[in-house]
Amino acid sequence: MLIATPLSMHFDDPLPLQSGASIRDYDLCYETYGTLNGDKSNAVLICHALNASHHVAGTYAGQERSEGWWDNMIGPGKPVDTDKFFVIGINNLGSCFGSTGPMQTNPDAPAGFGRVYGADFPVVTVEDWVDAQARLLDRLGIAVLAAVMGGSLGGMQALSWTLQYPQRVRHAVVVASAPNLTAENIAFNEVARRAIVTDPDFHGGNFYEHGVIPRRGLRIARMIGHITYLSDDVMNQKFGRALRESVNATAAAPGRPKQGLAPSGGSAAHTVASVGAYQYSTQDIEFQIESYLRHQGNKFAEYFDANSYLLITRALDYFDPARRCGGDLSAALACARAGFLVISFTTDWRFSPQRSRETIKALLDNHHEVSYAEIDAPHGHDAFLLDDPRYMGIVRSYFDSRVADPMRGAGEQQP
Amino acid sequence: MLIATPLSMHFDDPLPLQSGASIRDYDLCYETYGTLNGDKSNAVLICHALNASHHVAGTYAGQERSEGWWDNMIGPGKPVDTDKFFVIGINNLGSCFGSTGPMQTNPDAPAGFGRVYGADFPVVTVEDWVDAQARLLDRLGIAVLAAVMGGSLGGMQALSWTLQYPQRVRHAVVVASAPNLTAENIAFNEVARRAIVTDPDFHGGNFYEHGVIPRRGLRIARMIGHITYLSDDVMNQKFGRALRESVNATAAAPGRPKQGLAPSGGSAAHTVASVGAYQYSTQDIEFQIESYLRHQGNKFAEYFDANSYLLITRALDYFDPARRCGGDLSAALACARAGFLVISFTTDWRFSPQRSRETIKALLDNHHEVSYAEIDAPHGHDAFLLDDPRYMGIVRSYFDSRVADPMRGAGEQQP
Repeated sequence: MLIATPLSMHFDDPLPLQSGASIRDYDLCYETYGTLNGDKSNAVLICHALNASHHVAGTYAGQERSEGWWDNMIGPGKPVDTDKFFVIGINNLGSCFGSTGPMQTNPDAPAGFGRVYGADFPVVTVEDWVDAQARLLDRLGIAVLAAVMGGSLGGMQALSWTLQYPQRVRHAVVVASAPNLTAENIAFNEVARRAIVTDPDFHGGNFYEHGVIPRRGLRIARMIGHITYLSDDVMNQKFGRALRESVNATAAAPGRPKQGLAPSGGSAAHTVASVGAYQYSTQDIEFQIESYLRHQGNKFAEYFDANSYLLITRALDYFDPARRCGGDLSAALACARAGFLVISFTTDWRFSPQRSRETIKALLDNHHEVSYAEIDAPHGHDAFLLDDPRYMGIVRSYFDSRVADPMRGAGEQQP
Repeated sequence: MLIATPLSMHFDDPLPLQSGASIRDYDLCYETYGTLNGDKSNAVLICHALNASHHVAGTYAGQERSEGWWDNMIGPGKPVDTDKFFVIGINNLGSCFGSTGPMQTNPDAPAGFGRVYGADFPVVTVEDWVDAQARLLDRLGIAVLAAVMGGSLGGMQALSWTLQYPQRVRHAVVVASAPNLTAENIAFNEVARRAIVTDPDFHGGNFYEHGVIPRRGLRIARMIGHITYLSDDVMNQKFGRALRESVNATAAAPGRPKQGLAPSGGSAAHTVASVGAYQYSTQDIEFQIESYLRHQGNKFAEYFDANSYLLITRALDYFDPARRCGGDLSAALACARAGFLVISFTTDWRFSPQRSRETIKALLDNHHEVSYAEIDAPHGHDAFLLDDPRYMGIVRSYFDSRVADPMRGAGEQQP
């Protein structure tokens, strides 16, 4: 079993940000798994998405249920094999899991010592995160990454690495991601942000000093997010129109799959039968899907920082490498030197396969080395975190055959 | 030009509701267009969706911009031709446009005279609305409808009419609708309701007496709704990643289509170029889609009642005619006697064509007379309100050839 140990690295020098601002005296939390080899050529950086962290794999000593968020993917003998690779996870700046973020003390606060950033934390972008990650790798003595890998927002960071530091990345694995957000993606982010910002407990982002948390807004934000992480089909298969269990004993009959997938396909809305009696209420929980969403919202509001949510969704909105090239993604990706593995999932409507194919097209326009897998999975965007054997197999093959063999790395061939 | 005149009808007798409760001393607002013929065989009932009303067609005298919500569909010479048909629009119970709803005085309130329903307004269902509509038609002397027609939630009412009063409906026109909500549909409704209910200004639904309105919650609810009414494609074509216009003069250059569709298809995210500079803010409007959504939310919060929103979304959740038959939609639709025209739109992801095909399948299982049109339109769910010529043409043909000829009505043939 992989035992994970969180580490922290302090940076005195100001990090210039895309916005023109900068941040100084910051810490980055990170974890590493496996052993860096002699020529430091086996490092793999894992970039995290919205609500994840540096705790990518393994468990903390004495905490059995503390698996990292990609523990199914990364570890000894796993697709990204920590017996071969030195894997690094870094909590991004502005997040809320140990790296400097809105909850930490602002060294430049006019009010002086003890004042946290709150709403004054500078807006950070995917590019800023990549710059911060590169500095941390500098300090670890890692000049070139065997691979950078991420899903969703993490995939955007992986893609950006190949553009910001083309000579430092041999391979990029971009999973369930997109070269930018669509209007609909931005729209969902904006609704979530409005829910947080208009919560009276938000206090313009400085709720910490009021001793409150904008839980109502965070709950709504998470509920919206959750809907977009799942496919319509998987929601129907998991919940359908089933009523809350407490009032409807028949809905909880033994043998009925509650969280697993129903065995058959077809008209999913009818897979889970409607049973029991309506209670006819507008505010009480009537359907299981409502109970599930409220539970997810409640959990999230207890551990995630509201300002971090704003910052990270904005980083998603802003990411758009084609923008510097007048919207021409092919031109924007010309400078990349890495080999690419791009993976999408058929039922992911947040970052649909079409968006990955845009990336593929732009990479091929530049004659980059590209592998692309479109996995027929029912789970929607969440599929990138789940155990689909075809998905796992493709990542394993790519790391075994391509990443583990430095001579075949694209970065080496095009200095 | 059709001049519309709102009318009101009072009902003393209690209306029994599906919940077991009842409502008494209520009013229904309605409008009629055209002339009821001698044998009262040319009546067409139009059922409205979430935020619409009895004002279906025409304008109010002296108010030029007061067109009814389906004025493109209904009127003299229009697809539903008021020179031939006597068209009726009724505001549903629990809505907020004149019919009795949460903002009206509760005759049974314990606090006595002057107390409005608020959160005590009984939960109403699609079936209850149909019963209330049937009573109003009784008073107008209309025993049989030439047709009942509606889009979205209105389509559910049309379908329910054919099941609750099979002998009273010759034709049903069910547009952009579904035989029930999916888990995802319910999920979006639930998030919207939570946003309203957890707004501190909601006061458990009795905000009227506090002199406030839960505007924050209503705004969020409307923003979520709006995202689901539009297709991803049309959002990208209308807004893409374009930045707010106030700061980016180039984005507002003359000749650029702002609300219309971009001329070409393809990768819509790139159709509207990203121009201007990011301002790097988490709370200010950065993208046009944000500005549009906030505007829609603000408008809605000024005219729509929060309790009505809860009631009507719940009526959507509850509608499920197959439920009485153990989930067997074919069995549930066996009792219908009407001829059906069912229409769906390819990019409608709120009520996708697949859901309409479920209805069609169940109707065909019962050898009912069915016409089905799946319109290739880019506008998402909103398409049912827009002027697609193929859509308009099909409705016109159906009314001209089928509804206008009583001898061919299915209801007449199967007494």
